[in-house]
Amino acid sequence: MSTKNSVFIACSMDGFIADAEGNIDWLHKIPVPEGEDLGYAQFMDGIEAIVMGRVTFETVLSFGIKWPYEKPVYVLSTQRKDIPRELEGQVKILHGPLKTVLRQIHSEGHQKLYIDGGTTIQNFLAEDLIDELIITTIPILLGAGTALFGPLKNPLDFHGVESKVYQQAIIQNRYLRKR
Amino acid sequence: MSTKNSVFIACSMDGFIADAEGNIDWLHKIPVPEGEDLGYAQFMDGIEAIVMGRVTFETVLSFGIKWPYEKPVYVLSTQRKDIPRELEGQVKILHGPLKTVLRQIHSEGHQKLYIDGGTTIQNFLAEDLIDELIITTIPILLGAGTALFGPLKNPLDFHGVESKVYQQAIIQNRYLRKR
Repeated sequence: MSTKNSVFIACSMDGFIADAEGNIDWLHKIPVPEGEDLGYAQFMDGIEAIVMGRVTFETVLSFGIKWPYEKPVYVLSTQRKDIPRELEGQVKILHGPLKTVLRQIHSEGHQKLYIDGGTTIQNFLAEDLIDELIITTIPILLGAGTALFGPLKNPLDFHGVESKVYQQAIIQNRYLRKR
Repeated sequence: MSTKNSVFIACSMDGFIADAEGNIDWLHKIPVPEGEDLGYAQFMDGIEAIVMGRVTFETVLSFGIKWPYEKPVYVLSTQRKDIPRELEGQVKILHGPLKTVLRQIHSEGHQKLYIDGGTTIQNFLAEDLIDELIITTIPILLGAGTALFGPLKNPLDFHGVESKVYQQAIIQNRYLRKR
């Protein structure tokens, strides 16, 4: 069965996912009509499980909202062992080399994965494990912050296959890894 | 008369205009049909003069080709005073604060300007003097190189107004400064 690792993330025009103070309020500065989710629900329909880093997991927990994911979530962490009791059965903590982690997730029946969180995305890209990148560009130049992309051993070729403009402001580009 | 400063540049998905060794051969790795100029001629039709830094000017000279610009070119340099004799009347060297330089160019009858070259683009953005950015993204992650964007005193808001996919590979996004 074919596997696929996808990224669906928003960043600034200069490629930052958080500003220099770690803030992400600028992500939501372009008003969108009620119900406009910039393709998120459609993307999630094609996903079987979510893989995220510990920092992203704890950020979601810190929101104090109802757990927002319907699909199984795998959290990558060497530090954290426990999850809140109410998330048992929905969230699993894994650690180890990414390829081993992926084998385990695939063996549990999930082939189409949403890879989320800045560090996790960079780690997957560093091992050339990303097949699809959907990047929503918020039309702001920040000048500094946390970069979406990081260093690589070798350049990675993609195809830019699709592009959409939302609200005459936000541009979403989709890239597929060329293999 | 209204003025406009535009950027038309290609970069990698991770925002580099040259790789870590200064190479730009990857800019041309996606084959395009003969005559496909990715909107360059149409962009140049709307431009009245070109403003570039010394490094870009000397890079163009180093190609040893026929001078490629039909419009007047202004080269920003404090170092260089002379231009090759055959370019007299086509190229002028200017220096000084950007706003003073712009006043001079406008007074010579050129309001719609193409701002080119990595350092020059960053200097214009740092003073919030860019009105339009047309960014052609070559579908490659380089991991390192010369960044298109640099630090800013304050974030700058734009609108993403247009997006095109060329050859199912290259994505070109157009942003207008929100003022």
